[in-house]
Amino acid sequence: MKLYYAKGTCALASHIALEEAGAEYSTVRISFATNEQRSPEYLAINPKGRVPSLVTDRGVLTETPAMLAFIAQSFPKAKLAPIDDPFAFAEVQAFNSYLCSTVHINHAHRPRGSRWADDPAAIEAMKKKVPETMTACFELIESRMMKGPWVMGDTFTICDPYLFTLAGWLENDGVAIAKFPKVKAHRDRVANRPAVAKVLAAENA
Amino acid sequence: MKLYYAKGTCALASHIALEEAGAEYSTVRISFATNEQRSPEYLAINPKGRVPSLVTDRGVLTETPAMLAFIAQSFPKAKLAPIDDPFAFAEVQAFNSYLCSTVHINHAHRPRGSRWADDPAAIEAMKKKVPETMTACFELIESRMMKGPWVMGDTFTICDPYLFTLAGWLENDGVAIAKFPKVKAHRDRVANRPAVAKVLAAENA
Repeated sequence: MKLYYAKGTCALASHIALEEAGAEYSTVRISFATNEQRSPEYLAINPKGRVPSLVTDRGVLTETPAMLAFIAQSFPKAKLAPIDDPFAFAEVQAFNSYLCSTVHINHAHRPRGSRWADDPAAIEAMKKKVPETMTACFELIESRMMKGPWVMGDTFTICDPYLFTLAGWLENDGVAIAKFPKVKAHRDRVANRPAVAKVLAAENA
Repeated sequence: MKLYYAKGTCALASHIALEEAGAEYSTVRISFATNEQRSPEYLAINPKGRVPSLVTDRGVLTETPAMLAFIAQSFPKAKLAPIDDPFAFAEVQAFNSYLCSTVHINHAHRPRGSRWADDPAAIEAMKKKVPETMTACFELIESRMMKGPWVMGDTFTICDPYLFTLAGWLENDGVAIAKFPKVKAHRDRVANRPAVAKVLAAENA
């Protein structure tokens, strides 16, 4: 399998999941600085012009929640999700869907406001509200959604690298992670895993 | 199981999936007009203050992609997703994740811009761009993502009620569905299913 990623993006979650799963995979780094995600070569792989993309022998997969579930189901021995329990699996998926469709979206209104308005003043107005919306999301995660010590309780799952990735954006979004002690402790806990250290070293090389 | 929904929302997708699955379920209609989704009673069920919510004997599930996959996995005889094939299942999930985190979000910038900015002029600027962003999404769905006659090809899956639901918002978003003949034909095809007619009648009663 081949993972297309860019530094500092949500692709980190899938990258960590592949490493935690013990998968054989290679990576290709896409440069957002040179707008490589909009190149004809990359659009042939992923017509959405986004990362991550995962090239498999069956075809290309996109969308982080779908890729994370695919990795968990493809490497059952790694036990990255409760794949034999539809309710527990749905709880994992609901958490990841919230990260994707609410938390990531709120964050995106800082660097990517031009997706949703053309007026520069409107784009500035969006940026201004990001600390408030990200704070509201992480208050909910901290108080209601994280079971601890891992997101789903005693077992590391595909929710953990995804939360780790998005919590890493808080400081740049103008939110002090220290306001959320459980999330902060979780981020440190994930960072200390050998697979995560290896992936971070590779992405930062 | 008990489904909490509101009229005209994405909860319709889960409502149809429950009916197509042959599930035993009841429904509770929440009124957005009276802001019932923010009432203490409803927030005790779903602290996000959104619909849909699905109350099961194991607990409450939220987030449409997670609920749709749960319904497909809980009622395997209905064959609403290729649950024994991780790659094919991931394709289903990738489609639904795109609807949730890109298409629904673009749409939401018309009625729900206040989620992402406080300035009334910014909220107006967001509304103005919705026809453009929704058109871009449906061009991609029409040309690259829909296999036809159903979203995933020859078999009706949990992608179909979800696309049906979001395609139903196009006209109010200022986009003529007729511009997308495959999506338009799909919408008519879904509407003609007995389970869908039954659900629409119940929601409109």
